[in-house]
Amino acid sequence: MASFMDSDFLLTTDTAKALFKNGAEHTPIFDWHCHLSPKEIYENKTPSGIVELWLGGDHYKWRAMRSMGIEEKYITGSAPDREKFRAYAKTVSYAVGNPLCHWTHLELQRYFNIYTPLNENTADEIFDECNKKIASGGFTPRELIASSNVKCVCTTDDAADSLEYHALLKKENLPFKVLPAFRPDKALSIEAPGFIPWLSAMEKVCGMKINSFSKLKEAMKKRIDFFNEMGCRASDHGFGYFPYSPATEEELEEIFSKGIALEKLTVDEADKYRTALMQFLAGNYHDLGWGMELHIGAMRNNNARMFSSLGADTGFDSIDDREIAFKLSRFLDSLDKKDKLPKTILFNLNPKDNYVFGSMLGNFQSDETAGKIQFGSAWWFNDNYDGMREQMKTLMNLGVIGKFVGMVTDSRSFLSYPRHEYFRRILCELFGDLVEEGKYPKDIDFLSKLVEDISFNNAWTYFGME
Amino acid sequence: MASFMDSDFLLTTDTAKALFKNGAEHTPIFDWHCHLSPKEIYENKTPSGIVELWLGGDHYKWRAMRSMGIEEKYITGSAPDREKFRAYAKTVSYAVGNPLCHWTHLELQRYFNIYTPLNENTADEIFDECNKKIASGGFTPRELIASSNVKCVCTTDDAADSLEYHALLKKENLPFKVLPAFRPDKALSIEAPGFIPWLSAMEKVCGMKINSFSKLKEAMKKRIDFFNEMGCRASDHGFGYFPYSPATEEELEEIFSKGIALEKLTVDEADKYRTALMQFLAGNYHDLGWGMELHIGAMRNNNARMFSSLGADTGFDSIDDREIAFKLSRFLDSLDKKDKLPKTILFNLNPKDNYVFGSMLGNFQSDETAGKIQFGSAWWFNDNYDGMREQMKTLMNLGVIGKFVGMVTDSRSFLSYPRHEYFRRILCELFGDLVEEGKYPKDIDFLSKLVEDISFNNAWTYFGME
Amino acid sequence: MASFMDSDFLLTTDTAKALFKNGAEHTPIFDWHCHLSPKEIYENKTPSGIVELWLGGDHYKWRAMRSMGIEEKYITGSAPDREKFRAYAKTVSYAVGNPLCHWTHLELQRYFNIYTPLNENTADEIFDECNKKIASGGFTPRELIASSNVKCVCTTDDAADSLEYHALLKKENLPFKVLPAFRPDKALSIEAPGFIPWLSAMEKVCGMKINSFSKLKEAMKKRIDFFNEMGCRASDHGFGYFPYSPATEEELEEIFSKGIALEKLTVDEADKYRTALMQFLAGNYHDLGWGMELHIGAMRNNNARMFSSLGADTGFDSIDDREIAFKLSRFLDSLDKKDKLPKTILFNLNPKDNYVFGSMLGNFQSDETAGKIQFGSAWWFNDNYDGMREQMKTLMNLGVIGKFVGMVTDSRSFLSYPRHEYFRRILCELFGDLVEEGKYPKDIDFLSKLVEDISFNNAWTYFGME
Repeated sequence: MASFMDSDFLLTTDTAKALFKNGAEHTPIFDWHCHLSPKEIYENKTPSGIVELWLGGDHYKWRAMRSMGIEEKYITGSAPDREKFRAYAKTVSYAVGNPLCHWTHLELQRYFNIYTPLNENTADEIFDECNKKIASGGFTPRELIASSNVKCVCTTDDAADSLEYHALLKKENLPFKVLPAFRPDKALSIEAPGFIPWLSAMEKVCGMKINSFSKLKEAMKKRIDFFNEMGCRASDHGFGYFPYSPATEEELEEIFSKGIALEKLTVDEADKYRTALMQFLAGNYHDLGWGMELHIGAMRNNNARMFSSLGADTGFDSIDDREIAFKLSRFLDSLDKKDKLPKTILFNLNPKDNYVFGSMLGNFQSDETAGKIQFGSAWWFNDNYDGMREQMKTLMNLGVIGKFVGMVTDSRSFLSYPRHEYFRRILCELFGDLVEEGKYPKDIDFLSKLVEDISFNNAWTYFGME
Repeated sequence: MASFMDSDFLLTTDTAKALFKNGAEHTPIFDWHCHLSPKEIYENKTPSGIVELWLGGDHYKWRAMRSMGIEEKYITGSAPDREKFRAYAKTVSYAVGNPLCHWTHLELQRYFNIYTPLNENTADEIFDECNKKIASGGFTPRELIASSNVKCVCTTDDAADSLEYHALLKKENLPFKVLPAFRPDKALSIEAPGFIPWLSAMEKVCGMKINSFSKLKEAMKKRIDFFNEMGCRASDHGFGYFPYSPATEEELEEIFSKGIALEKLTVDEADKYRTALMQFLAGNYHDLGWGMELHIGAMRNNNARMFSSLGADTGFDSIDDREIAFKLSRFLDSLDKKDKLPKTILFNLNPKDNYVFGSMLGNFQSDETAGKIQFGSAWWFNDNYDGMREQMKTLMNLGVIGKFVGMVTDSRSFLSYPRHEYFRRILCELFGDLVEEGKYPKDIDFLSKLVEDISFNNAWTYFGME
Repeated sequence: MASFMDSDFLLTTDTAKALFKNGAEHTPIFDWHCHLSPKEIYENKTPSGIVELWLGGDHYKWRAMRSMGIEEKYITGSAPDREKFRAYAKTVSYAVGNPLCHWTHLELQRYFNIYTPLNENTADEIFDECNKKIASGGFTPRELIASSNVKCVCTTDDAADSLEYHALLKKENLPFKVLPAFRPDKALSIEAPGFIPWLSAMEKVCGMKINSFSKLKEAMKKRIDFFNEMGCRASDHGFGYFPYSPATEEELEEIFSKGIALEKLTVDEADKYRTALMQFLAGNYHDLGWGMELHIGAMRNNNARMFSSLGADTGFDSIDDREIAFKLSRFLDSLDKKDKLPKTILFNLNPKDNYVFGSMLGNFQSDETAGKIQFGSAWWFNDNYDGMREQMKTLMNLGVIGKFVGMVTDSRSFLSYPRHEYFRRILCELFGDLVEEGKYPKDIDFLSKLVEDISFNNAWTYFGME
């Protein structure tokens, strides 16, 4: 029987332990998709305490607390920090088997050297000790990133973003890179209330009038080039369902005109716009050697009441279940046909789509890059022990895991890097099981190299770093 | 190597064994959703023998026997009991890994003190011993419920039901409660042949003419209030697919008029009717503090030939696969917006929807009740070892299992209570594994309390008992 | 810790080892669905070497190599055999956990007596040894089939096929049967470019004009009768999505007329045609006692560029995700109603459909045959350790595995028979686990018999052999 989250956490075989020690433990981190704020990295403030760090913006924790029936004032409200912390501590103890339990204790261990399990009885003591350590230093964004052995983070930036903090960060002498990533979701949401304001911001940042679809493409190209100059190596897109509906240039101009005139668009019209814009963007990503991340299947802002009080990304999103295979295939093929398919990383939110995504890769691989089409690591609701195992087992069964670009935190928190450790432990355990069950040759050196590749090197090569 | 279904059945770790002993073994049962007949409980007859008890109405067993190629006369037909029993015994031995094997042997052990595995060779001996024991007493419905440590059962009753047997049972001095639960499926099936006869029954029981949608709502409210007076704490709804289509009151009145005039309704019209009626009903459940159970995804009566010879619920149902996420979200949000969302328990029949349902909960939790929105335990085709594990692992990964309202038999049989034991063993094994693998702190007292909560207390509190 | 793929490969318990030894190891093979070429069996040539055997037509291997970023010339192109072999050897070592690793090493062990793990370092040595052994004899199609303990293979033949090689093979004195299986996919693809040429071939082979739907049915009946005379016991159908749309005879004649006039058909028109033709075919299969195999869910030829250069079945197919349950149910019921439902084997490509398919069986079982409706073994992308376990666990949970007709290779390769061994090891391991975990009685004799039944006897009986 193992002790709670000790040094062999998740590693049950000698092979797994050896692989973790050789290939994973000291390998640096390339967090090529996250939601960190470049402004916060630039400003580099010491946080006010553990409650700011943990409960300041983490909708995973908020959701769990709401499931406990806890009042909102102890979650996102005005209750004193200590009381919020107690409420969270109790939640963690009731959330048996939830990844929050592991993330929370990994963070206590790695950043605070605290090995006491968190619960109602230990809450006060741990609260005090964390806050004492935070006050004594080492907890600014830059310190946390550097001490986590991170070589590079890619943030998530709107197409109209000035990237001013990225520009400022470039002038600093940092021990890690901070690169922008291009996330033009607002450009694609032509029927959303935010489209016109976004278009105005684009006109301003591009210094041009955008009154046609062709002008929009011209403006997007400017932004892509600017992002590229700023070191961007990846784009990112979020889709509830995946649209694909081909159209002529004339139709597209008409749809765009209706959109900016605030006329109601049909779903198919909006999808035609999205399809054409995505094809244009993807072609440009291809030409610059960027990776294109597609995050598919989030159904967002389900709770209108809470959305109006707290806004987006506050814990009221869940998993969509629409059909994806055919349209995704047609989109990727439309690019491949014209030799414009970029390196692409497919993330599914609904685990029912694991095999659809895992088998889609093989349709469009090529000798441009090893693992040109990637199956992204387990995302969001799947970012847990079981979900990561399933994603990797799917990839192993359907593809070549040795070329996998591995883990990202996808996080808003500066304390989230132990999730890479968590991922690597699971990877080593999977490989270890295969060896010890006689399902893969016992070649520890080779497997250690694969673990290191999946942990860092593959992504570093894939995104063309250095 | 474990012995076949011994006292440690399904419990492989010391922690699991301790949790079962402390938190599960002697905790009473609250079976808040089943299909027992209040009439049979009232009449309290001694069954004619094991074949009546086992094969009298259990479509799980019938299906398995048909898969063996057994003639219908040995299943639902006129063959002698001994021959039916032999046919079932053979089926059990071929159904390796099927839950029937475990349910059957748990029932033999717990109710008959028989530990011999059932198969062709032992069939006669076990048949005789069971029948001897049944004849010697202790096998009436009330005796079986009481001896199973059941504190309360909730039956499943049509909205037009007089609840006469519930009324009679209230006058008896029973060691357990028998409460009605409100299942208005017939009210929602406006296009079904049974709608008009059902409406007549409603008119009669409500003493009013129901010639408009607003009258229907008035009548439903009467029934809800009556059920509530009779102790009802839960409603239950069965949906193949989940409908959501908003409409105006005028449209609804028109649809209702067409419905009672036997004019053909479009699917969207019927869905508009269902949506509005469900919103009305749910609002009333909310006001009374009832729990609303939604059972989604059964595709019923697939075999027209057998339906015409045996009727519904005879083993010819299977799993539907339509999209659910968006409409379910819109329905729940439409209620939440008006502060009319009741406590809700979501049951999916298709395991592909586990993560959709498990992530839906978090969208609508609140401080009204701990775990206000629940992910129902593994239902019907999922009510097996693997299905229960998957449901609980999903809940653990996506929510807070400590507030889970746990198991129901959903059964027509008075011998089905060992399924609670089966569930609890699986729960203890899951918790035990987490502890012994170092994934949860070894706090046996706290985990024993959670096991007891999930086995009984959570549901008792959730439904507002006592 | 187990050695790599030794004699106990995949068998971790004493029970599993005993079951494999008693019930599986020496039981012959009935490969009732494969894609072997009867012409190649007839011509019986010695292959040029291991690269022809392994990389000559195996799109599983090609896909994996493309995922490595290997150039097409080393895959399907003109590179020297040794270089292709090296590229494949490297791929296998990176494809940790992929079934190719197991298939490859089983083939090396069973056919070449080579126990060295294949990788970049061992590639040359293994390449030379394999080619030496091939040159020294024993590797013709007939020798490989016979030495694999195969009693019968069923090939896959177009409805218009002359079956000339089957006729020639009948005259040979073979130690195994080679039977045709009826695969009329081209007949169903009325809107495909190949339909008219196929119809001409049918006219020729049937010696009749086919200018109406009723004539087509007459012609199909002729072919079915001819296949039956040639020993055919099974039909096979491939569907991306499953169509069901009833129509009148008049509509069908009109649709057929449009089809042969090359007028554009709507999806619903083509589906009406497919529905009616399938109903007609299925009724004939029923009358002849054939088994009907439905393979549902492949999305084919996703990569237009590669399709135009390499054609179909070259590794650019993936998994579809459309709804299946309702239409499949309606189709099967439409046959059952008229007592025309043949024995049917349902194969799903998308694992999300496991429970839909597994629960569909029970709707249409009957006493005509044990296990009349079968859940086909894990197919294509699921044909791996995890997929086979999931398929069998689904079948165990939802049906009666003792009547399962078991494994098929579905392969184009004469070296693929160890996949039956792989399947049987997994089956024995599953049964062994149940026994050793106390979930099934320890009755080794009975379980050995079931293993033998599932490995061979059930299929032999089901298809009415001998």
